[in-house]
Amino acid sequence: MASSEHEHPKKALGWAARDTSGVLSPFKFSRRETGEKDVTFKVLFCGICHSDLHMVKNEWGVSTYPLVPGHEIVGKVTEVGSKVQKFKVGDKVGVGCLVGSCKSCDSCANDLENYCPKSVQTYGAKYLDGTTTYGGYSDIMVANEDFVIRIPDNLPLDGAAPLLCAGITTYSPMRYFGLDKPGMHVGVVGLGGLGHVAVKFAKALGVKVTVISTSPNKKDEAIKHLGADSFLVSRDQDQMQAAMGTLDGIIDTVSAAHPLPPLISLLKVNGKLVMVGAPEKPLELPVFSLLMGRKIVAGSNIGGIKETQEMIDLAAKHNITADIEVIPIDYLNTAMERLAKGDVRYRFVIDIGNTLKSAT
Amino acid sequence: MASSEHEHPKKALGWAARDTSGVLSPFKFSRRETGEKDVTFKVLFCGICHSDLHMVKNEWGVSTYPLVPGHEIVGKVTEVGSKVQKFKVGDKVGVGCLVGSCKSCDSCANDLENYCPKSVQTYGAKYLDGTTTYGGYSDIMVANEDFVIRIPDNLPLDGAAPLLCAGITTYSPMRYFGLDKPGMHVGVVGLGGLGHVAVKFAKALGVKVTVISTSPNKKDEAIKHLGADSFLVSRDQDQMQAAMGTLDGIIDTVSAAHPLPPLISLLKVNGKLVMVGAPEKPLELPVFSLLMGRKIVAGSNIGGIKETQEMIDLAAKHNITADIEVIPIDYLNTAMERLAKGDVRYRFVIDIGNTLKSAT
Repeated sequence: MASSEHEHPKKALGWAARDTSGVLSPFKFSRRETGEKDVTFKVLFCGICHSDLHMVKNEWGVSTYPLVPGHEIVGKVTEVGSKVQKFKVGDKVGVGCLVGSCKSCDSCANDLENYCPKSVQTYGAKYLDGTTTYGGYSDIMVANEDFVIRIPDNLPLDGAAPLLCAGITTYSPMRYFGLDKPGMHVGVVGLGGLGHVAVKFAKALGVKVTVISTSPNKKDEAIKHLGADSFLVSRDQDQMQAAMGTLDGIIDTVSAAHPLPPLISLLKVNGKLVMVGAPEKPLELPVFSLLMGRKIVAGSNIGGIKETQEMIDLAAKHNITADIEVIPIDYLNTAMERLAKGDVRYRFVIDIGNTLKSAT
Repeated sequence: MASSEHEHPKKALGWAARDTSGVLSPFKFSRRETGEKDVTFKVLFCGICHSDLHMVKNEWGVSTYPLVPGHEIVGKVTEVGSKVQKFKVGDKVGVGCLVGSCKSCDSCANDLENYCPKSVQTYGAKYLDGTTTYGGYSDIMVANEDFVIRIPDNLPLDGAAPLLCAGITTYSPMRYFGLDKPGMHVGVVGLGGLGHVAVKFAKALGVKVTVISTSPNKKDEAIKHLGADSFLVSRDQDQMQAAMGTLDGIIDTVSAAHPLPPLISLLKVNGKLVMVGAPEKPLELPVFSLLMGRKIVAGSNIGGIKETQEMIDLAAKHNITADIEVIPIDYLNTAMERLAKGDVRYRFVIDIGNTLKSAT
């Protein structure tokens, strides 16, 4: 079996985790030649998603090493295959969480590649040709054009990168569950990487937004900086009681275990609680509280490629970007430690273009 | 304060529970004079819902005594108020779970009286005039015409009675959650009073039906008698595994605690698990299993009056009635004991008209 460095013709340099320690270091590998339908691009920025941290440490038990994380990837096209129709050299593009799917199931037929049982994750997965996928903590990417997103010119690449995961993860359920109607009132639980862009998209859609958080000190940030209409401290029973039955829906971005009943109580009749974070252990669901208002608890996982493009185009129209802290690649391990403590507002983005230099 | 027997002008005879023992006995009380908008009718049949048993024994902690149960009530109009528009003397009519609501909230404005926070239950509640409501285990009913359902002539009254609760409880979520499209595949969990009519309505809507039950011996009944397309024994892991990802939705009628993950696994992408029974304790909800297919767990509680009429009209069109065992009122306490053991196929209906005789 060929080594990672020589199995493909294109030399690539990335940063990889080699074990569960959480430490990443430079890693030479290779990428496939630009195929007929492939787009090759120089990576300029890559966001650090919290799931990268889980994968680096193998906290979900599915990681293989060496692991090059990164699924919030943006850059400029350097080469396109002969049958590529949507992109040309010089275009600004991005790749999110997926680089492949079966193209034949019901989900694929309905532009829901994210629910295709054979979808291929951008890193740490087996691609269609059997080789391992490596993510965006690297200098170049090669991807089938069907999984490449166009980044409109007016959108800054660094702030756009996190939208490819955090943006679509929160935008898609607002659309699918009908929480996108002007005048509606939507709650956003958790003000982190996902939550802060959820607030921005909801506002862009004309929706009234209440941020629900355990941290009272996020109130100013939520209202003054992000434009939320109101703020609830989830541990303040008086506040929560006063807000009962006021929300059309909730986007719950919290992955830690947390009680659902107080959130369900905030919903109006026909209200929808949509989970986009996945707590490891089952949560307690009081069925009676759903029955009494025809309420639902739902899950939603990123979004399809077509909808991701729609989300990015809407972001460009409304100048929505993630609030980021741009870091050089040498800062990666420190950033990971800070991310583990929640010490970032709201997303680290690695300046790959300027700071990841090939040693050769 | 006036006694139950004399607070209103109309003499009524029913059977009431006097305490939590579960035993009911004849009870003289009174009903209000037929108001301008009221319909008075002679009760001919009343179904025995499992919730009657819970209420009789105060198992939900909200019962007051004496309690006259019954919210699957049908009969013939004997008197109408001066402003009644929809009914005349001699009409066949029914009353389900509700006899009043606020008429001013969003739910009432949207024909969802069942989710009105001030809706008035047919028995054991306080009516708008402050008096206690008594249910259909009684010789006469007086109800506002807005809460009276017309029973089409071709529908036998005894078999129609349970539709006013069991029918609408299962029909409404099939409609609201879009599980009513011909060719869809819907699961029905539990083959009791609710489940057996759920199968009939689903088939009438052109939906493929799989009954899911803990009891293998219900298979013949489900398929041969009720017309279900297939049957799954929920404890048979091979059967459940083979059926993974095949259902558009599930109507779960089981009130006992039971695991949700096997049911969620049966759903396709975008599948909907709708609970219409309310287990007392919270159930465990594995959020990840919802995320991976944009699935939902929902609750639904009976239905509004307009939709109840629609359901009854559809039942008439398709000759849908509940499978019942008609009993004389003197058999009531035995029936309650058998119901507690699940010993009924599928609903007891009391022949009030022929067996409840006033002693006066």
